[in-house]
Amino acid sequence: MSRSINLAVISGDGIGPEVVSQGLKVLRAVLPQDAKLETKEYDLGAQRWHRTGETLPDAELEALKSHDAILLGAIGDPSVPSGVLERGLLLKLRFAFDHFINLRPSRLFPNTRTPLAGNPEIDFVVVREGTEGPYTGNGGSLRTGTPAEVATEVSVNTAYGVERVVRDAFARAQARPRKKLTLVHKNNVLVYAGHLWKNTFDKVAAEYPEVSTDYLHVDAATIFLVTQPERFDVIVTDNLFGDILTDLAAAVTGGIGLAASGNINPSGAFPSMFEPVHGSAPDIAGQGKADPTATILSVALLLRHLGYETEAARVEEAVTTDLTARDGSPRTTEEIGDALAARVAG
Amino acid sequence: MSRSINLAVISGDGIGPEVVSQGLKVLRAVLPQDAKLETKEYDLGAQRWHRTGETLPDAELEALKSHDAILLGAIGDPSVPSGVLERGLLLKLRFAFDHFINLRPSRLFPNTRTPLAGNPEIDFVVVREGTEGPYTGNGGSLRTGTPAEVATEVSVNTAYGVERVVRDAFARAQARPRKKLTLVHKNNVLVYAGHLWKNTFDKVAAEYPEVSTDYLHVDAATIFLVTQPERFDVIVTDNLFGDILTDLAAAVTGGIGLAASGNINPSGAFPSMFEPVHGSAPDIAGQGKADPTATILSVALLLRHLGYETEAARVEEAVTTDLTARDGSPRTTEEIGDALAARVAG
Ligand SMILES: CC(C)[C@H](C(=O)O)[C@@H](O)C(=O)O
Ligand SMILES: CC(C)[C@H](C(=O)O)[C@@H](O)C(=O)O
Repeated sequence: MSRSINLAVISGDGIGPEVVSQGLKVLRAVLPQDAKLETKEYDLGAQRWHRTGETLPDAELEALKSHDAILLGAIGDPSVPSGVLERGLLLKLRFAFDHFINLRPSRLFPNTRTPLAGNPEIDFVVVREGTEGPYTGNGGSLRTGTPAEVATEVSVNTAYGVERVVRDAFARAQARPRKKLTLVHKNNVLVYAGHLWKNTFDKVAAEYPEVSTDYLHVDAATIFLVTQPERFDVIVTDNLFGDILTDLAAAVTGGIGLAASGNINPSGAFPSMFEPVHGSAPDIAGQGKADPTATILSVALLLRHLGYETEAARVEEAVTTDLTARDGSPRTTEEIGDALAARVAG
Repeated sequence: MSRSINLAVISGDGIGPEVVSQGLKVLRAVLPQDAKLETKEYDLGAQRWHRTGETLPDAELEALKSHDAILLGAIGDPSVPSGVLERGLLLKLRFAFDHFINLRPSRLFPNTRTPLAGNPEIDFVVVREGTEGPYTGNGGSLRTGTPAEVATEVSVNTAYGVERVVRDAFARAQARPRKKLTLVHKNNVLVYAGHLWKNTFDKVAAEYPEVSTDYLHVDAATIFLVTQPERFDVIVTDNLFGDILTDLAAAVTGGIGLAASGNINPSGAFPSMFEPVHGSAPDIAGQGKADPTATILSVALLLRHLGYETEAARVEEAVTTDLTARDGSPRTTEEIGDALAARVAG
């Protein structure tokens, strides 16, 4: 574990800067005195695009490589055509830095409102593939804009890509008390990709006799996420299904104000990137209404990734205590950040 | 409206035969005395496949064309490799008969347990595209089974296919009191297909000034389905997103025991096919535990499609009354069918 962190910060759009500044506050508060934190802000996102037409120039992509990790707030604004920043910046980073593990823990914290009746115990983690599937940008359109248009999107899945994420998920399941791993796909319809996923899953399962496994079609998985979320421990799934399931998972565990994520390259060849699952929420930007907890929990994932396990656990405990103690009266973005910074320092 | 119905019946696997026989009972009970119902059972599904290796031979596909409609129970069994019956029978029918409207109403009936807290008012309909998207079987696998395997799945979307389903959805929204239509896609990632959908949607919207419209990414749509399901009136979406959203919708409205669907070709060139959203549930097959209500509500959609609007409404009212009156004690498949048959006849 390095005693210094050279962090790239992409605050981004909307509520991004607000939540990131609280995330950094907590990060500074939790780090040991002798650990050095350097941060460098990268001006990327909607404003930059409006100003220069650039989303992620090569020079900045190159510069980002020198960092130990990236903390990202949120990207996107209604003034930018859909897809421009997503494909040109967010996904470009995930692909360029080979973030093949998109890690998204879901936990129903104490004292947290869930839209579900009863009080289900929810504590699972989704290991979403991050560099393949329908996200590769491998599509096109013919006779665009005419009545004869054909538009295609190709989901690309490789044994290489599937096996590495499946292995990661098995290792995570093995390390958890319940040791349970669910593969989610749609192999009764997407038979080629589905069989690759299922065969790979079954092959790796043989190496993990202690991990109990099952398979669910993605449509059935959404049912269980609302009727029986406690059945899940670790889920491994493709890029698009993971996108859908983790938003749903965030909804049932109290909202995307609490959902953290890490875009991880476990090899360390490139910096991993940590970001809340939520978007830029331009409607509430600049009003101090955004909940920075998702970003702060993403900071915990960042700490764990860099080897600061104790500090990561401290941040997560602080969030748990903070949510348990809260009385429901509204707090500003900054108040939540201050409270958590105080808890991790204390 | 024809005073005779020449119905093809595919009872299929698992609980299929049980629920279909109750569906037919209610259909017979609700039809006017002078209407003639002829049914012909087609032996298709897992048993047939085990016996003969056939899923849907040309002769039977041809014979099915002569019917006014098809009532299908459920297809699938764990003893058959995943995809064989789905692609070879169910999807083959949807594609061969050009069922481009996959109609899936979602309503929270009175006195029905929902996993959601509170008592949200849910009454929307999903118009799912049925003949394109990632369901075309347009994929493949290279170097199968080796560490260098590449498996692809191609989502195919045409202006022709998208426009006809979008037009249908606008017409349905226009005919409903709230007149609201939501397009669900993922146009920030699947930019080619997404833009075709969005541009088509916006173009047709101009012809329906009374219909209010909005757009949601599929991930966000799953959030709203559990936190604010009352916001939806009509949803139009692609084949795969529709598959996922309608299972989730079924879950929040009390389970797939109540979710009906119609695979509709509005032109009448081919018979439309009506089926419950649920599967064959082999674990409870033959025990009289299956709820036939989803099939009976599918019969209502069938009646409406064939012009029996009064009878369709009578079935739906009977279901509403029956669910309102139920006291929670378990009833067998047949008891539910008998109760509903008595109500529609009475
Ligand atoms: C913004 C979008 C490209 C992104 C995704 O689809 O991955 C987001 O929804 C997420 O889940 O991080
Ligand atoms: C069985 C399967 C092929 C089918 C689908 O994916 O369409 C089912 O899930 C459905 O929703 O009718």
